[in-house]
Amino acid sequence: MSYFKYHVFVCTNEREDGACCACLGAGNARAYLKKRCKELGIHGKNQVRINSAGCLDRCAQGPVMVIYPQETWYTYVDSEDLDEIISRHLLGGQIVERLKI
Amino acid sequence: MSYFKYHVFVCTNEREDGACCACLGAGNARAYLKKRCKELGIHGKNQVRINSAGCLDRCAQGPVMVIYPQETWYTYVDSEDLDEIISRHLLGGQIVERLKI
Repeated sequence: MSYFKYHVFVCTNEREDGACCACLGAGNARAYLKKRCKELGIHGKNQVRINSAGCLDRCAQGPVMVIYPQETWYTYVDSEDLDEIISRHLLGGQIVERLKI
Repeated sequence: MSYFKYHVFVCTNEREDGACCACLGAGNARAYLKKRCKELGIHGKNQVRINSAGCLDRCAQGPVMVIYPQETWYTYVDSEDLDEIISRHLLGGQIVERLKI
């Protein structure tokens, strides 16, 4: 069994040229995901873990996150996108195709 | 195909109580892994990616890293351990059982 069912890594890297996930709100996105997962009672061992990560090397498609061990890559714009990732993927086990990269 | 064959997340979290991966040299470990993988020409798309990550929630077993999508968790002490992870796991595709957690 996986230590975490969904291990989410949100790129929160900062680059000086402004073309970075952090510049596009990744810090807030990561905090929002963690807060919502805690509120929903799904943040912890055998469930969901929301982590920040350094540059995931997909800057041109940023802001990005990756969910392991399934390896699903997402981009997102706002909290509606994040809510959909939570409700459909982390709770429902389905891929959010429109946000997948 | 996975975007990275081996996506390595090294916990580099700092805690004020001193019981953290950063306190146990994780920052240097992450830098060493990245440097060695670059020297070996295996750092990049379809190959290995070495990332720092926030707290992976396994502090008592730290310092820790996890390699996805296979999901192999390791602890380590020194550069010999890191060299073994590189040579046997990242180059050889084998699990280093003595460091696995």
